[in-house]
Amino acid sequence: MSVPSVGRTVETLAEERANPPFDVRKLSIIQHGSEKDLLLKEKFMLELARDPIFYLGDIHDLTKDELRERTFEKVGSLVYHVTNESIDDFQKRMQVIGLCDPGFWTRFGVHYGLFLGAIRSGATPNQMSYWMEKGVISCQGMYGCFGMTELAHGSNVAGLETTATFDEQADQFVIHTPHIGATKWWIGGAAQTATHCAVFAQLVIKGKKHGTKTFIVPLRNIKTLELLPGINIGDIGKKMGRDGIDNGYIQFTNVRIPRAYMLMKHSQVSREGHVTEPALQQLTYGALLSGRTAMVSDAADTAKKSLTVAVRYAAVRRQFKSSAEADMETQILDYPIHQRRLMPLLAQAVAFGFTSLEMQRLYETTSSALESLEPGDENLDDVINQLKTTHATSAGLKAFCTWACLQTIDTSRQACGGHGYSSYNGFASMYSDFAVHCTWEGDNTILALQSGRFLIQAYQEVVKGQKQSGGTAYMNNIEQVLKGKCSDKEELDTLEGIDKGWSTVAAHAVKKAAEDYEQCLKSGQSREQAFEVCSQVRFVAASVHTSGFVFRQFRAAVERVEAGAERDHLELLCKFYGLWQMEEKAAFFLRSGWLTGELLDHVQARVSEHCASTRKFAIPLIDSFAISDHILNSPIGCHDGDVYERYFDLVRRNNPQLAEHKYSDKILRFIHRAPEEMEDFEGEIDLDSELEEMAEEREEAEKEAAEAKSKQETKEDK
Amino acid sequence: MSVPSVGRTVETLAEERANPPFDVRKLSIIQHGSEKDLLLKEKFMLELARDPIFYLGDIHDLTKDELRERTFEKVGSLVYHVTNESIDDFQKRMQVIGLCDPGFWTRFGVHYGLFLGAIRSGATPNQMSYWMEKGVISCQGMYGCFGMTELAHGSNVAGLETTATFDEQADQFVIHTPHIGATKWWIGGAAQTATHCAVFAQLVIKGKKHGTKTFIVPLRNIKTLELLPGINIGDIGKKMGRDGIDNGYIQFTNVRIPRAYMLMKHSQVSREGHVTEPALQQLTYGALLSGRTAMVSDAADTAKKSLTVAVRYAAVRRQFKSSAEADMETQILDYPIHQRRLMPLLAQAVAFGFTSLEMQRLYETTSSALESLEPGDENLDDVINQLKTTHATSAGLKAFCTWACLQTIDTSRQACGGHGYSSYNGFASMYSDFAVHCTWEGDNTILALQSGRFLIQAYQEVVKGQKQSGGTAYMNNIEQVLKGKCSDKEELDTLEGIDKGWSTVAAHAVKKAAEDYEQCLKSGQSREQAFEVCSQVRFVAASVHTSGFVFRQFRAAVERVEAGAERDHLELLCKFYGLWQMEEKAAFFLRSGWLTGELLDHVQARVSEHCASTRKFAIPLIDSFAISDHILNSPIGCHDGDVYERYFDLVRRNNPQLAEHKYSDKILRFIHRAPEEMEDFEGEIDLDSELEEMAEEREEAEKEAAEAKSKQETKEDK
Repeated sequence: MSVPSVGRTVETLAEERANPPFDVRKLSIIQHGSEKDLLLKEKFMLELARDPIFYLGDIHDLTKDELRERTFEKVGSLVYHVTNESIDDFQKRMQVIGLCDPGFWTRFGVHYGLFLGAIRSGATPNQMSYWMEKGVISCQGMYGCFGMTELAHGSNVAGLETTATFDEQADQFVIHTPHIGATKWWIGGAAQTATHCAVFAQLVIKGKKHGTKTFIVPLRNIKTLELLPGINIGDIGKKMGRDGIDNGYIQFTNVRIPRAYMLMKHSQVSREGHVTEPALQQLTYGALLSGRTAMVSDAADTAKKSLTVAVRYAAVRRQFKSSAEADMETQILDYPIHQRRLMPLLAQAVAFGFTSLEMQRLYETTSSALESLEPGDENLDDVINQLKTTHATSAGLKAFCTWACLQTIDTSRQACGGHGYSSYNGFASMYSDFAVHCTWEGDNTILALQSGRFLIQAYQEVVKGQKQSGGTAYMNNIEQVLKGKCSDKEELDTLEGIDKGWSTVAAHAVKKAAEDYEQCLKSGQSREQAFEVCSQVRFVAASVHTSGFVFRQFRAAVERVEAGAERDHLELLCKFYGLWQMEEKAAFFLRSGWLTGELLDHVQARVSEHCASTRKFAIPLIDSFAISDHILNSPIGCHDGDVYERYFDLVRRNNPQLAEHKYSDKILRFIHRAPEEMEDFEGEIDLDSELEEMAEEREEAEKEAAEAKSKQETKEDK
Repeated sequence: MSVPSVGRTVETLAEERANPPFDVRKLSIIQHGSEKDLLLKEKFMLELARDPIFYLGDIHDLTKDELRERTFEKVGSLVYHVTNESIDDFQKRMQVIGLCDPGFWTRFGVHYGLFLGAIRSGATPNQMSYWMEKGVISCQGMYGCFGMTELAHGSNVAGLETTATFDEQADQFVIHTPHIGATKWWIGGAAQTATHCAVFAQLVIKGKKHGTKTFIVPLRNIKTLELLPGINIGDIGKKMGRDGIDNGYIQFTNVRIPRAYMLMKHSQVSREGHVTEPALQQLTYGALLSGRTAMVSDAADTAKKSLTVAVRYAAVRRQFKSSAEADMETQILDYPIHQRRLMPLLAQAVAFGFTSLEMQRLYETTSSALESLEPGDENLDDVINQLKTTHATSAGLKAFCTWACLQTIDTSRQACGGHGYSSYNGFASMYSDFAVHCTWEGDNTILALQSGRFLIQAYQEVVKGQKQSGGTAYMNNIEQVLKGKCSDKEELDTLEGIDKGWSTVAAHAVKKAAEDYEQCLKSGQSREQAFEVCSQVRFVAASVHTSGFVFRQFRAAVERVEAGAERDHLELLCKFYGLWQMEEKAAFFLRSGWLTGELLDHVQARVSEHCASTRKFAIPLIDSFAISDHILNSPIGCHDGDVYERYFDLVRRNNPQLAEHKYSDKILRFIHRAPEEMEDFEGEIDLDSELEEMAEEREEAEKEAAEAKSKQETKEDK
C-alpha cells in the first residue's frame, strides 16, 4: 500500500541531510565571514527566539495598532544592548533583527540610524555634547525622527520646500511649511512617538535661499507627548508593509528654534546671518552609504530566508507518482522545472551574500578614510575617488540586489503553491516588508542610472589611458577586452573563462552607453540632457556591469577559501551563477560576439545540469544559511520537516474554532429571506433602451461642453 | 517666482487631454468590443460607485473580520441581479466587480461559479431539479462551497485522498478524511458561510478505487449554522490577500450522504454499486476553461487599472528642473527612463485587452460546441480538437498574462515612488489580491508546460504535413518559416514584418523543444519522462509562442478597425508591443538568425522612440480604459488630477488626529525611565569567552551525536 502523502516528511529531510558532500558548519562559517560572526548570529537568534516580546506566531493577526504597540515595546528590549555593545556587534545584532522583524528594524533605526546619525555626521562637537546631555544616546528624555521626505519631493533633496528663515533679531530660525506639497511625509516615528525631528529645510537668510540644511526641531512636550505650538502631526496610516512603525506627516507653522539647533559641522550660520559653506560638498554623501550597504546584506539574507522555506518545502512536498508502482509520490524538488525555478536563485543568494561582505568591507574602508581625513590632506583626491567608487558600487548593488531579492521572494512563494499564499507561511509579509527597499534611500531606477553615469565616466577615463582599480578594473586594456571571444566549451567551465565573458560583455554595454552619450554631446546637448537621453543605455550598462561585479566578488571569495569540498561546491555555485546570468542576459553575449549561438545552447544545457546537481546538496546548502525556525516563522519551511502538523497547529492556534462568529445572523437572514422581500415591479427591465438613453445623454452632454468651450474661446478671442 | 510643485496638477491633466490625437470615446468602444459593452460597464460602475456597501475609502483599514462581514453583505446586493439578468450581462457585471473588489468576486464566485458550476456540469437533469428546489439558484436555504484542494494535494486532482466509500446496504456514501494531509484546505466560504460543499473524493466500492468524483455534502444545520455531526471545520485565517472570503478547512469523519448526492451526469454508481464511466473523459475539462478565461481578462483589466494610476500620477508629479529658469519642475512622465518603465507596459495592457476578447470568443465557441454535442456526433473529433486548442491557449495565456500583470502592478507601484507604498493608493492590495491568480486553477508554471506540450504535438503534426489552424497556424510551411530572416529596417516598421519575426522565432523555440523531446524518446525514455526532462525548453517554447500569439491577436484586432486616427494609434501600439517583446526576448531573435546584431540595435532604438511617442497620447489612451475613480480607489490616480489634496484628505479621514493613542504612557515611561532602573552587575560581559563556550558546547554536542549515531549503526549492523 502506498504511504500517505504527508507521511515521512521528517524522514525525508533527515535523508536529504544524511550524507552532505561538504562540512555544513564549515560552509556556514565561510559564508558568514568568520566563525565569530556565525556564533554571534546564533547567539542573537537564540536570544530573540526566547524573548517573549519577539514571539512571532501571532504577528500576522495583529491589527496595525496592536502591531505598533508591540513594536514599540521591543525598543525597550534593545536599548540596553545599544548602550552596552560595540558598534560592530550591535550592527550584526540589528542585521539579524532586520531579518526577523523589518518593521521594528525601521522603528529602531529611525532614532538610532537616521536621527542620531544626522546628529553624529552634522553636529559640531559642542552640539554633539548638547544633544548627548539631552539623552539622545540612550533615548532618555527624547526620541528622534528624521524629517527629509515631503509630499511633493522624494528623491530630489535639493528641491525640498520647507523653509528655515533666519530671524537675526531673535537669533532664531523660523521653520515653516509653505503649502501642502511641503508637508513632511512618511516620517517614521512621527505619528505617535517622536519628541524631536531632524528637519531638512531650505535655509533662507534675508530673502536668499542657501540650500537644504538640517535643523533639530522639538515636536512634542516630553512630559505629555502633546504637540508643541505650531506643530501639526497626523498619522499616515496603513502601508503595504512595515506597519510596526508609525509613519506620520508634519506641518510646521512658524515654529521657532534657537540658531544653535541648526547642525553646523558642515555649513555655519553666524550670529549676523553669514553663511559658511563646506569646502567639499561630496564629503556629506558618506551618510547615504550606510543604509545602502545594509540593504545589500538584507537582500542577501532575505533571499536566503525565502529560499530556505521554498527549498525545504519542495523537498518534503510530494506530488504525482512517477509510476503506478512507486511507493510514494515524487518530491517536487526532483522535477527539473522546479529546480529551474529555485536552484539559480539559490546560487544567486549565495553570490549576494559574498558580495554583501565585500560591500561592507568597502564601506568600512571608505568611512574610516573619510573620518580620518584632515583639511588639506594630500590624499584628499584619493579619498574622494574612493568615495565615488564606493558610492556608485553601493548604488548599483542596492538597486539590482533588492530587485532580485523581491523577485526571489515572490518566486519562492509561488513555488510553494497555495500554501505560499497563507500569511502564516511568511511570504506575504516578507514581500510587503521588503518591497520598500526598492524605493527608499534612492529609487532603484535612479540609483541604477547613477551607477551607469559612473561607468560612462570610467570608460572615458580608460579610453584616455587612465587605469581603473576596484570594480571597473576589468575595463583596463579596453581594446583587448572588447575583442574577447569565448574560445570553446571548456572555457565556460572555468571561473576565469566566465569572468572574461562578463568583462567583455559589460565593457561592450558600457561602451555603447558612453558612445551614445558622446554622440549626444556632439549634437549640441548639454551634459545633463545627454545623460537623460541615454538613460536606457546607462541603465542597461549598470545592469550588465552589476551581474559581472557580483560574479567577480563571488569568484574572489571562492578563491580565498582553502582547498576542499566546501570550496569545490562554492566553485560550482559560482560557475552556476555566472552561467545562469549569462543565459538571462544572453542577448548581450550574442550581440557582442562573445558567445556564438552554439555556445549559448551549451550554456543553457549547463545551467540545466547545474540545477540538477545543485538540487543534490540543496538541503545541506540551505542549512548552511543558518536561519532559525523562529526567524523563518514559516511552518512549511521548518528545520525538522514536520510541516503539515506545524502548519495545521499554527492555523488552529491563531483561529480558535469556538470563537463566536459575529455575523452568522446576517447569513441566516439572507439564506432564509422570503422571496417577496424584494418588491416586485410591473414589467421587465428594458436594458437596451436604458443603455440607449445613457448614450444619448452622454452625447448631449458632450455637445454642450463643446459649445460652452467654443463660446468661451470666442469670448477670449474678443 | 516658481510655482509650488503641487500647483497646477489639475491644469496639467487638462492640458494633457486638450488635443487628443484620436477620438477617446471611439478608442474606448473599440477596446471594449462594442458600444453596448462599454455602456454596460459604465452603468455597472455607476451603480457600484453609488452603492453604499461598495464604498471603498475605508477598505484598507478594516480588520479581517470586518472585511468578511462587509463582503458577505455585498452578496445580498448582487443576488438580485444574478436572478434577473442574462448570463452574459451578469458576467460583464462580475468582470467589473472583480476589478473593484476581488475578495468579494471570489466569495460570490465560490457559490455561483464553483458550487453551482459543479452542479450544472455534473448533475443529471433530475439532480439539477432537486438542487434547484433546495434553492441553489437564489441562495435560498443554502450556500455552497467547493471542496477540491487538500492540504497535501493541489494541482494533482487525481491524487486527492478524501474517500467516498459506498455502503451498499444503506445505499449511502461515507465521506471520510483518512489523515491530516487529506484535510480539505483553502475552501472558500467554508469557515463561516457554507451550508453545503461539492466535495471531490476518491470513490471506493468494495475496496476498489474508482477515481475522483464529486459529492454534495451538507456541512451545517441550515437553521443555526451549527456544524453537522462528523464535520470539523476551521478557519484558515489571514492570507496574503482577498481576506474578504472566509477560507476554511474541512475534515470529514464518516459522514453519510444518500447515493443520489453524488453528481452523476458523467459517472454513475448504481444501487448495486456498479460504476459506469463516461465515454470521453476530456469533455469534463470544459469546466476549467471558464476560470482561466476570466483570469486573462482580469489580467488585462487589472494591468490597465494599475497603469491608469501610475501614468496619471507620472503626468502630474514633477521632480527636478530642466534648467534654473524653468517655471516648474519637469513632469516625471517626460523622463525617458520613466517612459521606459511604463509605456511598454501600456502597450502590453492594450494587447492583453484584445487578446482577452479573443479568448472569450474562443471560450464561448468551444462551450457551445460542447453543449450541443450529442453522443455519436460525427464532428466529435473536431470538437475535441477545438477543446484541446482552447485548453492549451487558455493555459498559456492564463500563465503569462497573470505573471505579466503581477509585474505590471509592482512596476506601477515602484513608478509612484514612496506614495505607491501607501495602502491608500491601492497598489498593495492590488498586488496581494492579484497574486493568487498565478497559483490557483492551475499553477502558472504547470500551465505553461501544458501549453508547451501542446506546441510540441502541433510541431510533430506539422512535420507530418498536418495543417494547423488557429493559434499554431504560423507553423504551417514550417521549413519556409524556420528559414525566415528580417530583410531590413523597413520590415520592422510593418505589422506583417513583425508578425513574420514572431512566427520564425516561435517556430524555432517549438522546434528546439520538439527535437529535444524526440531525442529523449530515442534514448529510451518514456513519453512522460521525456516531457519532464524537456520541461525547460517546453516552458521557453510556450513563453515565446505566447508573446507571438498576443501580438497576432492585437494585430488582427487592429486590422478589423476602420481606417482613421484610432486605428493608426492602435497600430502604433501594436508595433510597439511586438518590438518591445522582441527586445525582451532578443536572444531568441539573434539565436534563430531572424535579427542581426545591427537590426537588434535598431529594434532597441525604435522601442525608445515608441516610448517617447506613446507618452504624447498616454493620458487620452489611459482615459479610453474607462475605469472609474471609484474602482481605481487611488487618490494619486484620480481622473481630475487633484492628487495631493485628495490623498491628504483620504489619509486624514482614515486616521482621525484626535483619536486617543493607546500606548503613549508606555512611551513616556520609556523615555523617562531612570538610569538605575536596570540593575548594574559587576564587571563587563566577556563576549569572546561567551562565544568560545558556545563553540565548545556545540562541538561537544556534535561529537556526542556522531558517537550515538555510530553506536546505533553498529547495533543495527548486529
